Amino acid sequence: MKRRVVRYGPEGVEVVEDVLVDEAPVEFVLGKVPIAVLMRTPGHDGELGLGFAITEGIVLGPHEVDGVIHTGSDSGDRYDLVLAQGVEVDPEQFRRNLFTSSSCGVCGKASIDAVRVAARHLPEGPIVQRSVISSLPERMRSAQTEFAKSGSIHAAAGFTADGRLLGAFEDVGRHNAVDKLVGHLATAEWPLPPMVLMVSGRISFEMVQKAAVAGIPIICGVSGASSLAAELGDELGMTVAGFVRGDRFNVYTGEGRIS
Amino acid sequence: MKRRVVRYGPEGVEVVEDVLVDEAPVEFVLGKVPIAVLMRTPGHDGELGLGFAITEGIVLGPHEVDGVIHTGSDSGDRYDLVLAQGVEVDPEQFRRNLFTSSSCGVCGKASIDAVRVAARHLPEGPIVQRSVISSLPERMRSAQTEFAKSGSIHAAAGFTADGRLLGAFEDVGRHNAVDKLVGHLATAEWPLPPMVLMVSGRISFEMVQKAAVAGIPIICGVSGASSLAAELGDELGMTVAGFVRGDRFNVYTGEGRIS
Repeated sequence: MKRRVVRYGPEGVEVVEDVLVDEAPVEFVLGKVPIAVLMRTPGHDGELGLGFAITEGIVLGPHEVDGVIHTGSDSGDRYDLVLAQGVEVDPEQFRRNLFTSSSCGVCGKASIDAVRVAARHLPEGPIVQRSVISSLPERMRSAQTEFAKSGSIHAAAGFTADGRLLGAFEDVGRHNAVDKLVGHLATAEWPLPPMVLMVSGRISFEMVQKAAVAGIPIICGVSGASSLAAELGDELGMTVAGFVRGDRFNVYTGEGRIS
Repeated sequence: MKRRVVRYGPEGVEVVEDVLVDEAPVEFVLGKVPIAVLMRTPGHDGELGLGFAITEGIVLGPHEVDGVIHTGSDSGDRYDLVLAQGVEVDPEQFRRNLFTSSSCGVCGKASIDAVRVAARHLPEGPIVQRSVISSLPERMRSAQTEFAKSGSIHAAAGFTADGRLLGAFEDVGRHNAVDKLVGHLATAEWPLPPMVLMVSGRISFEMVQKAAVAGIPIICGVSGASSLAAELGDELGMTVAGFVRGDRFNVYTGEGRIS
């Protein structure tokens, strides 16, 4: 969004028009039950809804969702997640997932239990070259279209083990960027191909949780991983790498996938 | 938390012991009702519980809370928020607040409505010198004890209008750092003195919401504000400044408080 901004600097004060990252609410409804209201950057809402439903364990894959239908936009956009015929979701399961759906806030024990149910231990492989890991931040940045405008938007990108870009998405919310990516890739191929997830920020417990539920074996971040993210990654057999900057990075767990 | 990390760099691969930012779940209970499970960095849990209850509008101030009592720690710490005698909370209000309590995920329309109820328009003043604004990031960083260890933790600091540090808190969650600060300051003085809130990252809708409910008139971030954060700040008469770096910063709304 363009907005009038007063810019203070050593050369004085000037009023300019600047671009702010868009943030607006969206509600996803499943069978008349609102499952989440997210603050997100508008765009790719269908991918976001599908990806969210997958990474929160509400559905088991894209085959369980027939469509994401826009149904309203009074003070925010609203979408119905239409389940495929015969697919049913337990409301209690819902409830727990709603509580675990936050990005860095509401989460916790229920979700730690939940991820152990929803996320299987990841299979071995793929093997990724060090040089590929080091190339990812720059290649993700090149795929970003919005960052240069506002300087303030998160990104998530998927790459094959040999470094081919599968997709890149941006959002004001770190986890939304991951969900948009997962929703997008899942419609093309499911289960997802063995891939590397690159994220622009830190790696929290919930990032690892979302990646694990989506079956992603390798997650890399520009910043560090939290203690619980490293522990969960270890437990699930995931490779977790942080501080991927220049030709350096740290691997917290799963270094067997790095050659 | 100290953890074995495999460090890759141009000089080779080495196994080192590194410090990861601590992340663990905590549950806050109010009258047997769990009001939130947060992923947070342990420490200052009492301040976090009180601050969360205030900034989410669950209580109207520290006088409504008699104490935050540790009641258990099986797979995560649990605390009871003990209300002062005669204070009652509407469960429906609760419910909404639980949904708005996430950090960058679950939020939205209900919370946009809620903040207009809970947060009054901020009064005029105080006036802050440009040089004070520019000094805040460095002074917040100096007050941080954990950042140097992990390189990956958020911070929030409160300052008087003439730049005196009131307090600084760190947490793996951006909003938790704000809540710890508010909880800490609220026990000393309520309503809070006119102050400047400095945060280490971006300024989202929910950051402005929390600051507004706590009666904080000026919020500054090292990164930018979102469109909705700027709009809400504008509507509530708040000063919102972003990209506070070196001797530059951008003011999105409320520049009348900058001299």
